[in-house]
Formats: sequence, C-alpha cells, structure tokens
Amino acid sequence: MKKLNMVDKAFLLSENRETPMHVGGVSLYTLPPGANEKEFLHGLADSMRNVDTMLPPFGDRLKTGPLGLVGNTYWEPDPALDLDYHIRHSALPAPGRYRELFTLVSRLHGTLLERSRPLWEMHLIEGLPNRQFAVYNKTHHAAVDGARSIHVSRVMLSADPNHVLEESPLSLHLWEQYKAGLKMGKRPEHTTSELRSVSDMFKLSIDSGAHVFNAVKTFAGTLVGRGNGMALPHMRVPRSALNAPIDGARRFVAQSWPFARIKAVAKAFDGTFNDAVLAMCSGALRTYLQVHAELPQAPLKAMVPVSLRQPGDVDSGNAVAAISADLATNIDDPIERFERIKASVQVSKDFYAEMTPREIELFFLIVQSPAAILAPLGMMSKLPPYNVAISNVPGIRETMYWNGARLDGSYPLSIVTDGMAMNITLVTYAESVDFGIIACRRSLPHIQRMIDYMEESLQELEDAAGIKAKPAKKHATGAGTSRGRTQAKANTRPKTKTKAKAKAKAKAKAKAKAKAKAKPKTGAGAKAKTRATAPARAKTAANAQSKPAAKPKVKTGKQG
Amino acid sequence: MKKLNMVDKAFLLSENRETPMHVGGVSLYTLPPGANEKEFLHGLADSMRNVDTMLPPFGDRLKTGPLGLVGNTYWEPDPALDLDYHIRHSALPAPGRYRELFTLVSRLHGTLLERSRPLWEMHLIEGLPNRQFAVYNKTHHAAVDGARSIHVSRVMLSADPNHVLEESPLSLHLWEQYKAGLKMGKRPEHTTSELRSVSDMFKLSIDSGAHVFNAVKTFAGTLVGRGNGMALPHMRVPRSALNAPIDGARRFVAQSWPFARIKAVAKAFDGTFNDAVLAMCSGALRTYLQVHAELPQAPLKAMVPVSLRQPGDVDSGNAVAAISADLATNIDDPIERFERIKASVQVSKDFYAEMTPREIELFFLIVQSPAAILAPLGMMSKLPPYNVAISNVPGIRETMYWNGARLDGSYPLSIVTDGMAMNITLVTYAESVDFGIIACRRSLPHIQRMIDYMEESLQELEDAAGIKAKPAKKHATGAGTSRGRTQAKANTRPKTKTKAKAKAKAKAKAKAKAKAKAKPKTGAGAKAKTRATAPARAKTAANAQSKPAAKPKVKTGKQG
Repeated sequence: MKKLNMVDKAFLLSENRETPMHVGGVSLYTLPPGANEKEFLHGLADSMRNVDTMLPPFGDRLKTGPLGLVGNTYWEPDPALDLDYHIRHSALPAPGRYRELFTLVSRLHGTLLERSRPLWEMHLIEGLPNRQFAVYNKTHHAAVDGARSIHVSRVMLSADPNHVLEESPLSLHLWEQYKAGLKMGKRPEHTTSELRSVSDMFKLSIDSGAHVFNAVKTFAGTLVGRGNGMALPHMRVPRSALNAPIDGARRFVAQSWPFARIKAVAKAFDGTFNDAVLAMCSGALRTYLQVHAELPQAPLKAMVPVSLRQPGDVDSGNAVAAISADLATNIDDPIERFERIKASVQVSKDFYAEMTPREIELFFLIVQSPAAILAPLGMMSKLPPYNVAISNVPGIRETMYWNGARLDGSYPLSIVTDGMAMNITLVTYAESVDFGIIACRRSLPHIQRMIDYMEESLQELEDAAGIKAKPAKKHATGAGTSRGRTQAKANTRPKTKTKAKAKAKAKAKAKAKAKAKAKPKTGAGAKAKTRATAPARAKTAANAQSKPAAKPKVKTGKQG
Repeated sequence: MKKLNMVDKAFLLSENRETPMHVGGVSLYTLPPGANEKEFLHGLADSMRNVDTMLPPFGDRLKTGPLGLVGNTYWEPDPALDLDYHIRHSALPAPGRYRELFTLVSRLHGTLLERSRPLWEMHLIEGLPNRQFAVYNKTHHAAVDGARSIHVSRVMLSADPNHVLEESPLSLHLWEQYKAGLKMGKRPEHTTSELRSVSDMFKLSIDSGAHVFNAVKTFAGTLVGRGNGMALPHMRVPRSALNAPIDGARRFVAQSWPFARIKAVAKAFDGTFNDAVLAMCSGALRTYLQVHAELPQAPLKAMVPVSLRQPGDVDSGNAVAAISADLATNIDDPIERFERIKASVQVSKDFYAEMTPREIELFFLIVQSPAAILAPLGMMSKLPPYNVAISNVPGIRETMYWNGARLDGSYPLSIVTDGMAMNITLVTYAESVDFGIIACRRSLPHIQRMIDYMEESLQELEDAAGIKAKPAKKHATGAGTSRGRTQAKANTRPKTKTKAKAKAKAKAKAKAKAKAKAKPKTGAGAKAKTRATAPARAKTAANAQSKPAAKPKVKTGKQG
C-alpha cells in the first residue's frame, strides 16, 4: 500500500462540492476506415477492461484510519473493482455539434468523483458527425499529476495506424514496457519527509495567524534566498471578475489553432512560442473583460508553468517552474503588449536560473498548490495569487492513433477555484495547438466567446507583425476549416475602433521597433471585411452537418 | 423569502457525497404523430423556459447567514436564474435500449445538485427506438416533498392529446390555476415551532446518550401514548445485505406490470392492492437475498407509507402514516407469507386508528426522516430502522399527455442511505403499476435481476391463488409484451425446488384456507416450461429494435 504525500492529500482535503479537484481532457478521434462506430467503441471499452494487474493507482481506492484524511492515507486495491463503472458510454443529443459535446463535458467535469472507488472515469462519447467520436476522461489530482497523465495517454497511442494494443493501456505491464522504451533512468521520488517539511513550513506560516501575503513572502524568501517581485506570486495582482468566488457549475470551450500561425507571431517579435500564446490570451482576456465585466487598470497576472529543462535532459521530467507573467492587459498596443509580456517572462526565468532543479521542483510543488491549501481557509478570494492560469503542455508532434482511430485533437480541462475562476490549458499536437478553456458558469458568463476573442487577438498580432494570413473563405465547405466555431450568437462588440487604433500605433512604431520585425499591413479594409463575416460563417458551419474532411477537428476558419 | 423548516433543513444537513438527498423520476413518452423528435424536444425545453414568475422554490436558491445551514435558512430568488443549466438535453448511446436509459439515469441520480442554484434538474433524453423519449428529473427533498412533486407533474399533463400548455409548468400562474381547479381548501401548514418541538424532542433523546432504540420508543410512546410492537419502527429488524453502509454509486431498474394482475392476486387472498405489492416484493427480496447474499432468519421489515385518508377527504392531503410491515421473508409458502403480511399491515393500521390526522402527520414527519437525522450521527448502519422502503404512490388512472406526447410510464427514483441500501417505489398509472428500484451499486450487486424475481414472485402468487395467466408467447413480436426486460444475463438460480414445494403446500392448504380462494393449478408442467424460456425471450427482446406498438413501455412479457 502506497502512502499519499502531503500535496496529494491537500487536493483531497481542499475538495468540496464547488471545487472538485480532478483534471480531465476531451479527445477527438476519427474511426478507422470501414469500422462500425458501435462495435469499435465497445471494442475500445472491452480493451480498456482487458487488464490483469492495474497500473497504480487506477485500481486502488483510498484507505484512511480513524482520523480520516487528516491521518495517514494509503492507496489500497479496490476489492470489488468495477470497470463498467469507470468506463462509460455516452452520447450527444442532436445535432451533435461540438457545442453539444462541450455542454456534456462541462457537466461531466462539474461532478465529483466517487471517493470510495479508484478516482477516475472515462467516457466514450458517440453522436458526432463525420465519423468522429470523443473520449472524455477525468482523474483526481491526488491520483495522477499532469506529467503522469500525459505518459498514460501516450501508452495507448501509437504513430502506427495499424497498431492494436494487446492489453489495456491501464495495465501495469504495458506501463513498464513503455517506461523501458523511454530508457529513462530511475529518478528518486521526493521522500515524504522532504515534502512534508516544505508543506509544513508553508502551512505553519499561515496557521500562526500571519497574513497570507507575509506567509508566502517568508516562505519564498526562506526557500530561495532572494525576492524579485516579478517572479513571486501573490504580489501586485489586481482584482477582476476572473477572481470571484465560484459555484459548482462549469462551462468549457475548446478550439485548435495551427501551430505555424502562433509560431510565426513569436518569430516576428523575437519571442518564444509561449510568449506568443500569452500575448494571444492576453488580447482575448482584455476583450472579454471589456465586453463582459470590467478591465482592471493594473495588468492581469498569469500563473504560467515554464520548462527549465535543458535539451537532451530527460531525467528531470518535472523541472518546470511556475512564473507569474505580466499579461500587460492594460496596454492597448499589441506590439507593446507583446514586448512587456516577453520581458516579464524573461525576468522570471532569470529568477530561477541559479536554483537547483530540486529547489525549483519543490518551489513549484508549493506555488502550484496554494489553491489547495488556501481554499479551505477561505483566503483565495481575498488575495488571489494570480488572475488566471495559462498552462502550455508540450504534446506529441506527430499524428497518433488509438487502435487505428486517428487522434484529431486533445483538449485539457483543468481546475478552477475560488479566486481563480478561469483556466486556460493548451496542448501542442501534430500541426496544431489545442486550447481548452474552463470557467465557473456563474461568475464568468459567455466564456464561449473567448474563442472568438482568441482568434481576433491572434489576427491583431499577425496584422501588427505584418504577417499575411490567407483570407478565410466565406461559407467554408471543408469541415476542417470552420467546424467547431460552435458559438451561435454573433459577437456584437464594436471592434473597428480599437483595431484601427492598434494598427495606427503599430504603423507609427514600426520603424523604431526594428527588433519586433513588425510589418504593418496596408490591406486592412479587405481584412476587416473578412472578419466581420466570421460570426455568420461560424453559425452556418456549426449548424451544418458538413461532409467528411481529411481531419475534422476543433479549428478556426483561418489556416494562415 | 420563505424560511425552511427543520425537516427540510435536515435533508440538507444530512446530505453528503455518498448520500444525495434528492428524489427523482424517469418518464417515458411517445412523440405525437408526425412530430420531429429534435424539434419537439427543443419545443418542450423552450416551453419549460417560457415563464414569467416561477413557482417557488423552482426559481429560488438557498440563503444562509454566518452560521450556514445551522442558522436560519431561507429561499431567495436566484438573481441570475439560468434555465439552460436546469433544463438539459441528453442522449443514449447505441443501441438505446432501456438498459442504456437505466445506466444513464443511475449516473444522473448519483451526482449532487448544485447548492448555489435552485435545487432541481430536468433531462430530456433522446435515443430510444419506437418514437419514444424519456424525461429524467431530480429535485432536492428540501425543496419539494413527494406530494407536491406529484402535483407539479400533474400541472404539465393533460388527458387531452390536443392540449398544449401556454406557459411553463413551472410558472406560478399555472400552479395557481391548477390549485383553483382542485377546489382544495387552504390548509394551514405546520408552524415552525410545532415542527421544531417534535424534532427537538427526538434529537434530544438521541443526543442525551440514550440508545437509539430507547429514544425512538420514548418518542413514540410520548407522542401516541401506546406501544404496539408491530407498528413501531426500529424494533426487531434483522441485519441483512440491504442494510450495509453505502457508497455514492447507484443502480436503477424499472418495470411495469398490469394493475389487473396485482389486483387479482389481492382479491384472491382477500387483501388490499398494497398487500399484494408487498407480497410480490417480499418474494423477490427473498430470492434476491438467497441468490446474492444471505437471507436472514428473521423476517425483513419494510417501511411502507399507507394512506389513512377517508374517501372524499381532500383536505388532509398528507394524512399518510408510515408503518413497519412484516415482509415474512422467512416463510417459504406464498399463501402463508401473504397472510402474515396482510395481518401485520392491519395491526399497524389499527395502531394509527385512534390518532388524529395531525398526530399521524407529525408522527410520519418524524418516522420518515430518521435517515436524515440519524445518518450524520453514524447510527444508521448500527441499527437500521427498517430493512427496505416500499412506497406505493397513487397516480393517475387515465392516459395522459404532455403537449401531445403520450405518457407511457413514470418510474420513481428515491433516496438510499447508510443502512437502507435499496428503495422500491411504485406509481399506479393508467392500466399499469410502474416500479422503480434503486440501490447502492456496491453493497447490492445485480439489482437488475430484481425485475425477474418480481415477475417470478407474482407468478408464484398467481399459481397459489389458482389464477389462470395467459401463457407468454415465445419470441414476442409486439414491443409492448417484453421490451424493457433489459437484463441480458439469464438467472441461473435453480427454481424448480422451491416452486414445487410451494405448490405442494398450496394444494394441501387449499381447502382449509377458504378465505384465500386459492385454486391450486394443475398444469404446472406447462407453466414451468414457459418460465424457463423467459430469460431467453427477455434477451431477444432487449436486443431487438422491435416495431412500434400501441403503447411500448417497460413491461413484462406476461399480460395475464
């Protein structure tokens, strides 16, 4: 029986009806040629159940003593493991668009996992057109951390469309094969005492009655011996609608963008892919708050895990650090905004540069769990540590298959808490970047519009960088071009004013900012027209049961 | 703002992850001729949302003060009422049998309602064959008691297939029209102080450290001034698998039987319809425990609400009492079992005979809520007050329609708790009796087989009473005859022995028991053969997408 460490237990202890502590994902697949949907999905479920010894803790349930979760807690094998309970068939109501898929997934993600059983569920979802099906999975954060869940999903995928798994991807045997295949050296896990001492130090600072701000400052100072304001969480974070208390209902949306588009923006401004993602999200959040709530005067801060791993280093798998990126949402000019974001990320990276991987990892274990530790104390909504979490999860860069079904996209669903009512997580997969956005349904209405705002933000960056994007076609016929634009209501925000202003600024700055390689675009009129018709296209595409395409996935109309 | 009374609050306070305190129902409908399923279901959802002022508390959320639910608690209008959240579209995966419906409904019934919103959900479920659709609703017991929920569902139904509601059935306006139509006199609700004093007395007895048995005995003695053992709950109840601690996962099955069959058995043994239902359930529970667990030597006790209302009395709408019926599960002979059940029900009714309706009602308010009051004290599994709850809810005896869709059946889903892991609730509707059985998925496996055992038990009673049932046809073609027998696995229990024994006894007693009008059947061989093929028929019918029938509903193959 494996004992749970302090961090895992924090996810259990802090969980309540409004704040389930599970993470999930929804993946889109295309059936193999000639396969019958019902038979194929039942075959997948059967193959998931074809397991002798389960990979821990997928066959384990929690075992506590008389003190409950406050005392020692272990994983023990579930004596009546009921895989029919965990592996489920579901279906979408008509017309089976991504809108119906997101609605179902929002509901499934909003309910608690059953505590007396292994802490995961998998849903095979039928009812999508174009021979697609979806898989939603949810796993408690106490059972599987982000890194491991990616490895587990890799066990079931193959680059070979003819490969068929002989055992369940949840079998211990396959897992060990996979690990051996990676040729990863065994890396010692953190000892419980290490984790406990760090956690206890943090907890003690809070329990002793000190202000949370001081507790975090003290902790961070103690651990890393210096105090650079830009990198420390819990500092200079404005209040916003993103940081309200939450209820238990969620809304989820997802969309893919071509990796090349975001990478081109990064290159144009001499930034990283991650910088470009943050800039794209920043523009979208700026618009969202302007339209649906109130944009704070101070810039929003994002919690962003960044990889500090050196190329070729596979040993320090978790060598990531959480940084607090300045999203510069108070800045109107997209170029200036990009520069500010880039600079703040660099400062944060410098902050970590002299730390050992082990120090960084321990630090990250703490800074990623304030929600878990602060939530039960009711302090999250009083002092939000960040405004929003934006996580970029490196995925697989080639097309993968599960028993012959082609993976078309994979969209993460993370955790939102009191004070952090939205989470944006993205996964790079094949030629795409797959974004999953989840938010509290009550405190953040209409988050489905974030997808439009993200596209507008990317286009604004492309315009500022002078990148020529292919004009999107009206009434797209290929499902790959605009299916997934599932929001039926047109965005009524007047955009011309801010756009025009941004472009004027961009022109003025073009010469001074040689570094940014910005080539202001002159054909703005044609572009604006294309954009104005986008919501109408989206509506048409969302209602149409369009013909099968090469790779239908949740993607915008624009392929530039 | 309406204040919640003690009983309503008890349902909220005692609720936890494993024990949601909501009740629900799943109804089957047939689309009106020519209607398009998608359009019709969206039309129903739209009409549900077409409401100006909501019937309280369907538009209200809970409002508590600094003490939370322990302090005063009120209903207040939800300032951001989101009917899209409450009214949902769902679908069944292929092949869309009742089996898939029950699986979906089991899952939906197992999750908690969102506490910060009005405490109800409604799911319009598509994907059934034969132009049927289903509606699952769940409502917190703190918001709506059983009697009111029936009235609400009656508001939306009409005996006229051409009637279309002009407003939402959840509108206050329609509710007031309905109440006026009933010409019911205003009846004073219990004052809070009345309820509080009764609840407090009960709670005090427990809190003062006395044994629960004594507490209940004292309470009952104080209130009614006498103590007849057969009627008092918490007495002489054997331990059984039905009384284990539960987890949060449920399994639900449902089935309809012809009212005439059960009534004929009641008449043959000179008992009531309710006596016959209890005898039918008793035989099934006996078999279930023999096959899947252990049959206790002492007879099981059932909590059975019985109506004490005089004909023509509409004023005392809640004049029902809870009795503890002896299910006589230790008795092999079906005739003797029936007699024992009948006698125990009569003793209980006598017990209440001299009480005022008000006394009875208060008594019932308490005896129906021990789960709510005892569960948080962890006493339910130590001293189960009853083994199982069997509730017979009088329904509408004519065919009803919702905006033209014909109601084919309506199956209740009640609450199970630690120590009461199964609940059987039945509703009489038109020519049928619609049973809904819900149980904890872990402690009571394979409850889907209860449906077979219920049919066997009814046949055994029919045999003992000498009622000639039409022999069921092999490979039934009409959907009305055996669809809904969704359990795919055949029951492997050897039945011939107990059956033969019962019949031999029945023959011997036939003359002595003139009152029972038992006519022992001689053609037992033919009957036994028919029965042996039943599981095979069920399997065929469950897999077949059979042609539309006049009234496809969850029904057994036997129409006798």
